[in-house]
Amino acid sequence: MSDIEEFQSQRERLQSLMLEKADRNMKRFLNLDTQVYLDGALPAREKELIGLVSSLVLRCDDCINYHLVQCHKIGLKEEELVEALSVGLIVGGSITIPHIRRALDSWDQLEG
Amino acid sequence: MSDIEEFQSQRERLQSLMLEKADRNMKRFLNLDTQVYLDGALPAREKELIGLVSSLVLRCDDCINYHLVQCHKIGLKEEELVEALSVGLIVGGSITIPHIRRALDSWDQLEG
Amino acid sequence: MSDIEEFQSQRERLQSLMLEKADRNMKRFLNLDTQVYLDGALPAREKELIGLVSSLVLRCDDCINYHLVQCHKIGLKEEELVEALSVGLIVGGSITIPHIRRALDSWDQLEG
Amino acid sequence: MSDIEEFQSQRERLQSLMLEKADRNMKRFLNLDTQVYLDGALPAREKELIGLVSSLVLRCDDCINYHLVQCHKIGLKEEELVEALSVGLIVGGSITIPHIRRALDSWDQLEG
Amino acid sequence: MSDIEEFQSQRERLQSLMLEKADRNMKRFLNLDTQVYLDGALPAREKELIGLVSSLVLRCDDCINYHLVQCHKIGLKEEELVEALSVGLIVGGSITIPHIRRALDSWDQLEG
Amino acid sequence: MSDIEEFQSQRERLQSLMLEKADRNMKRFLNLDTQVYLDGALPAREKELIGLVSSLVLRCDDCINYHLVQCHKIGLKEEELVEALSVGLIVGGSITIPHIRRALDSWDQLEG
Repeated sequence: MSDIEEFQSQRERLQSLMLEKADRNMKRFLNLDTQVYLDGALPAREKELIGLVSSLVLRCDDCINYHLVQCHKIGLKEEELVEALSVGLIVGGSITIPHIRRALDSWDQLEG
Repeated sequence: MSDIEEFQSQRERLQSLMLEKADRNMKRFLNLDTQVYLDGALPAREKELIGLVSSLVLRCDDCINYHLVQCHKIGLKEEELVEALSVGLIVGGSITIPHIRRALDSWDQLEG
Repeated sequence: MSDIEEFQSQRERLQSLMLEKADRNMKRFLNLDTQVYLDGALPAREKELIGLVSSLVLRCDDCINYHLVQCHKIGLKEEELVEALSVGLIVGGSITIPHIRRALDSWDQLEG
Repeated sequence: MSDIEEFQSQRERLQSLMLEKADRNMKRFLNLDTQVYLDGALPAREKELIGLVSSLVLRCDDCINYHLVQCHKIGLKEEELVEALSVGLIVGGSITIPHIRRALDSWDQLEG
Repeated sequence: MSDIEEFQSQRERLQSLMLEKADRNMKRFLNLDTQVYLDGALPAREKELIGLVSSLVLRCDDCINYHLVQCHKIGLKEEELVEALSVGLIVGGSITIPHIRRALDSWDQLEG
Repeated sequence: MSDIEEFQSQRERLQSLMLEKADRNMKRFLNLDTQVYLDGALPAREKELIGLVSSLVLRCDDCINYHLVQCHKIGLKEEELVEALSVGLIVGGSITIPHIRRALDSWDQLEG
């Protein structure tokens, strides 16, 4: 199993656990977290890019991997991905570099 | 002068001061900070939205105001702005609310 | 008007603006942000303390002021407040000190 | 060994190393870090909850695990834990979700 | 009164308030916060620079101003200051720029 | 292979991948990230210490490890390292402790 597949399998297991234990407010938040990325005034593709770079500047590898999987499904091109990550690098600084490295590694695995 | 005009005037004064005192590396970074938002594989409009929401989740009012001015120039619609801010709200949580409130106030002033 | 009164009046004005412009997801989040502090398995008082110190370590003055007002209404004693802020100081470090100073100043104004 | 046991064993080894190498200021901080969670104007239980959620919004898995162990010793109920985590989720946003998932997994292991 | 003088006067007033209300742990932390910047294995000058740039990447204007005053007393040269801020800019990204601008403005006032 | 050797080998592999995929702005940032730590008005040694503690308060283990390797090459003494980490601990709070523990463990491996 590649790292990104391991991430997805682990995420699935823990997401089930969270849904099982979540109280009503937690469940409503999780629902909202799905709604907010759907097509609306802005297309889902732009929202995924926004979610991806927000996750990068906040430096959350799991969140980055999640949005990379979505971006890959949507058909984002690598040069678009790299430009989005470059914006995050300038906004967030060198502290984001280890996350960018791992994001590009995940992307390679998604591209297979 | 509205708050956003005061922000722009203060920013201009301090940006001049920074350019006057900056060393070579600082100047190169400032240049890069301009380059990264230009049209490329991704259009400038998407990069500005990414920059805006990244600034929101990192909670920097000055950075938010700067990108709001750019988004306004580019012709972003209010409903697009609100959806982008909603993504930032879900990613970054209630701690972003005071910044969203002020962002919407700035937007109103820009719409004048 | 004291600083804390000015905060409350400004907050009220901007909260109206936010509700006026908010999309459906933003409104649902704002609703959730009220629900989560109500009495449940944990009493509202403990949730307010948790919200206060979370706001302190994330260093959001507006959020701190909001929870201080709630803690004051609930009848929190000053020595309880100070102990809660001390936990935040140890968790978040000296970077929280300016926020603690301002929090204690707001508290004095609330105590009137 | 479960993940939480491995965490505790690794933490113990590194804590010894830190105490061995620490200078006087570091040692005084570590001492203060113990003192601040003891019963006082606020009961230890409330301080542990505050420490837990502060660690969640600052997104430190080791700190979360440490406070989970303390909360478990004190006899916190799962529904109380979940409500405390829900406050952290609303304050800190979706970026805290991976940490909440892992916290609930650790809790399950502590409940054994 | 210049901005930096106003900062110092406000800081002094609020520091008195904090000392008046602080519990034992808070006081011990404040003491530690003084000790840690004194000459030791590293000279005070290097520790002030470390404190300054740490405050920059964590984006705390009050903390930055405090360390600027100390750096100015110690006789730091402007070109040394600018290089230290450049490291912070690269580490922390464009999100630190508004703080660098204000830091350079404060420095000008200190050089007065 | 020790943990720090594994870190270095993994970092090298991913750095190659990043350079291979990087766009022009990303490459220019990476170049700047090298330039900013070179001898100038401040000696490289002080800049590495600043980079190290900035990485600590921002809590990036990879960045900490990178600067530890540089500090070790430059001949930093352990008591100097510990004092620098103590400043970071006071600035950033207990949330930095897990990173300090791991940093001291890496240092031991570098001292071999």
